[in-house]
Amino acid sequence: MKKIALFPGSFDPITLGHVSVLKRAIPLFDKIIVAIGINSSKQQMFSLEQRTNWIRSVFAGEPVVEVQTYNGLTVDFCKKVEARYILRGLRTAADFEFERGIGQVNRMLYPDLDTVFLLTEPKFTPVSSSIVRDVYRNGGDISSMVPQVVVDALSE
Amino acid sequence: MKKIALFPGSFDPITLGHVSVLKRAIPLFDKIIVAIGINSSKQQMFSLEQRTNWIRSVFAGEPVVEVQTYNGLTVDFCKKVEARYILRGLRTAADFEFERGIGQVNRMLYPDLDTVFLLTEPKFTPVSSSIVRDVYRNGGDISSMVPQVVVDALSE
Amino acid sequence: MKKIALFPGSFDPITLGHVSVLKRAIPLFDKIIVAIGINSSKQQMFSLEQRTNWIRSVFAGEPVVEVQTYNGLTVDFCKKVEARYILRGLRTAADFEFERGIGQVNRMLYPDLDTVFLLTEPKFTPVSSSIVRDVYRNGGDISSMVPQVVVDALSE
Amino acid sequence: MKKIALFPGSFDPITLGHVSVLKRAIPLFDKIIVAIGINSSKQQMFSLEQRTNWIRSVFAGEPVVEVQTYNGLTVDFCKKVEARYILRGLRTAADFEFERGIGQVNRMLYPDLDTVFLLTEPKFTPVSSSIVRDVYRNGGDISSMVPQVVVDALSE
Amino acid sequence: MKKIALFPGSFDPITLGHVSVLKRAIPLFDKIIVAIGINSSKQQMFSLEQRTNWIRSVFAGEPVVEVQTYNGLTVDFCKKVEARYILRGLRTAADFEFERGIGQVNRMLYPDLDTVFLLTEPKFTPVSSSIVRDVYRNGGDISSMVPQVVVDALSE
Amino acid sequence: MKKIALFPGSFDPITLGHVSVLKRAIPLFDKIIVAIGINSSKQQMFSLEQRTNWIRSVFAGEPVVEVQTYNGLTVDFCKKVEARYILRGLRTAADFEFERGIGQVNRMLYPDLDTVFLLTEPKFTPVSSSIVRDVYRNGGDISSMVPQVVVDALSE
Repeated sequence: MKKIALFPGSFDPITLGHVSVLKRAIPLFDKIIVAIGINSSKQQMFSLEQRTNWIRSVFAGEPVVEVQTYNGLTVDFCKKVEARYILRGLRTAADFEFERGIGQVNRMLYPDLDTVFLLTEPKFTPVSSSIVRDVYRNGGDISSMVPQVVVDALSE
Repeated sequence: MKKIALFPGSFDPITLGHVSVLKRAIPLFDKIIVAIGINSSKQQMFSLEQRTNWIRSVFAGEPVVEVQTYNGLTVDFCKKVEARYILRGLRTAADFEFERGIGQVNRMLYPDLDTVFLLTEPKFTPVSSSIVRDVYRNGGDISSMVPQVVVDALSE
Repeated sequence: MKKIALFPGSFDPITLGHVSVLKRAIPLFDKIIVAIGINSSKQQMFSLEQRTNWIRSVFAGEPVVEVQTYNGLTVDFCKKVEARYILRGLRTAADFEFERGIGQVNRMLYPDLDTVFLLTEPKFTPVSSSIVRDVYRNGGDISSMVPQVVVDALSE
Repeated sequence: MKKIALFPGSFDPITLGHVSVLKRAIPLFDKIIVAIGINSSKQQMFSLEQRTNWIRSVFAGEPVVEVQTYNGLTVDFCKKVEARYILRGLRTAADFEFERGIGQVNRMLYPDLDTVFLLTEPKFTPVSSSIVRDVYRNGGDISSMVPQVVVDALSE
Repeated sequence: MKKIALFPGSFDPITLGHVSVLKRAIPLFDKIIVAIGINSSKQQMFSLEQRTNWIRSVFAGEPVVEVQTYNGLTVDFCKKVEARYILRGLRTAADFEFERGIGQVNRMLYPDLDTVFLLTEPKFTPVSSSIVRDVYRNGGDISSMVPQVVVDALSE
Repeated sequence: MKKIALFPGSFDPITLGHVSVLKRAIPLFDKIIVAIGINSSKQQMFSLEQRTNWIRSVFAGEPVVEVQTYNGLTVDFCKKVEARYILRGLRTAADFEFERGIGQVNRMLYPDLDTVFLLTEPKFTPVSSSIVRDVYRNGGDISSMVPQVVVDALSE
């Protein structure tokens, strides 16, 4: 059976923290699906197309990683794509408490599903998509926080 | 003097975690008032009537537990109903930090009031009303998270 | 059935934080047993007799509170004295994580047992028996941290 | 070079916790700029003029403290006013995790900037501007939470 | 290249929490080495032979899992056995902070090494080897905390 | 009045995390006393002389920083050397909870004393003296964790 992991999020935009976790997870799985959740009640800064293209561009040479979008419960999408693992990065103790709750609820809904955590690298610990958006919105320099393809797109 | 405790919340909807805390607290008090706060600025998923009826139904045979609704500060409602205790369940360290702040402010406003905490059972640790709403909204199975009366009402 | 709570600890020595939690818990129970655990592998600063007498002295006029010593598992002593509740004060999030673990293990060993938590008052949050011992050992002033009877005994 | 610190926030309204941190920080700096961030997407309860006047009034006799307003990134305002320090109070572990993230991002954007933290006094630990607003909105007594000038203005 | 993970610890004794993490990790790796650290300065309750045999017995039918002992730095043992992953279970936020520190130091010493975390199941969250030893030492029932082989050996 | 800060610790040995905090604190104070606590009940790895010399060597060109040793309560030593500030670095939320307790007790004993916290740089977050000792004891490479003078002394 193929080992398939889901890496769910909004990726608004993808950060170097996401990239670091994904790259380190590649050897563990046969396929990693970066799953962009479509949450109609939450306004995103960047379009779904931009967010998708940026991730595809970063992992262009990496056949293990693919990008998909989904609606509804993450566990239902896992069942649909036959993912038995959810992949998440951990930055802080607050992150951990939040992720543990989500991970345990996911197992209540789908007992065969497991969450695999990797640590964020220390230099990326404070970086999140919401910090990036805040810095970008105010004209600050995000080049140490996001992949070059995002920097290039946003400085055009 | 009767020992009266308030168990405040939105109960949108009541969860099995709430039920477990309430049941274990019954021997400690002469009366426990489940107090549904009416917060006009916060949109609820279930009507006040539904939320009230579900709690009444779960504790139908339990004369110690009654259900009331209130506006305004929790401490003011405590004074009105002569409650000297607030009852709360604790799930995580993040919960604790939040509850400690609320509990200390309540004592600044009403020094005779004390908060009594019980632990949530481990299997209900990740369950909260907001998780239940999210799972329900997306068509997931909430039967391990809420009392049977809620499951029945929502599957009609 | 009488409501009996155990308040376990080393009480080496009792602090004003302990006293505050105990006083506020008195209305909740028919009997509160302050249970001094005898842990032969842990060296105490004050003798068992001193520790016992100080607590008895503080609660001399309070028939609900009594002092006992015990060996072995706290849950076994609870069974012996028919205590269905353990009483604990909570100061910090680190405290909470520790107490939650103990409380959950106690329920694995004795499912009818529940732990009831009260908040430490903010001014006593940093005070613990080990801090008191450290200050006392170094000749500092502990009069804002322990009951007067302890201050008197130690300044003789 | 003058040592200039920024104390950023919304101050909606200033609390006794803020005042305590500021007063204790005065000896450390040549100038402390209380910097009221203007965040157009966030609705404030009190007008910018009220918030500014209250802080000016509290620190009227204190030449080190001045009040300014700003838009955009805090680091950009620091550069503009030549502040090399950001001053913050710390209340809880949750506060700390949040502040550490902000502090580290600020250093990514402006490596010469450092954040200096003081502890909130225990009695003010649970007090925050959002708690004050909630108590005030519901007709509660905020006189132990905010400076007298705010109490006076709001009881008119 | 084979994917080899180290699961380091004292295993004094192995708990059902360890077993649950290991079983769920088996599909992720080609080999998992349960590595019993020999720490001469720390007194263990059970002999190295007992601890080793218990783990071997639990995973007797599982060729992916093997048991080894080691001295010195965990990263050095990883290099020796060609493990590029360390496997750890996460129970609480306090665990996480500790593990993050260890994981980051390990990467400072061996940048190709990554730590993979799985969540402990909620029912095993409060169970640790030190809790088991404490309960066992005091004659309590550890059968819900450790594998049957340990229960059998200790009840002989 | 001169602004004097104490930076207390065991410094067994000094780490690059300590150095980073000290260097960034120099502009804030007229004098910073690195105060090595002599705790006879705690066995140190390196001699008091070594520890002192290493710190002196690192800050040789820095007149603001001096090194002293002390016995007894930190607050008593602060009074003796007329220090009104204690300087501490903060790494994790667990650190913060511990430091907050110590800081609040110090203010109970000496109300004029304040603790000033700086953040540890992310890359040094996992580094502590006890980690350094553990790595050194096991023959690992500590050159990215301690000042060059310590590396040189220990590789002789």
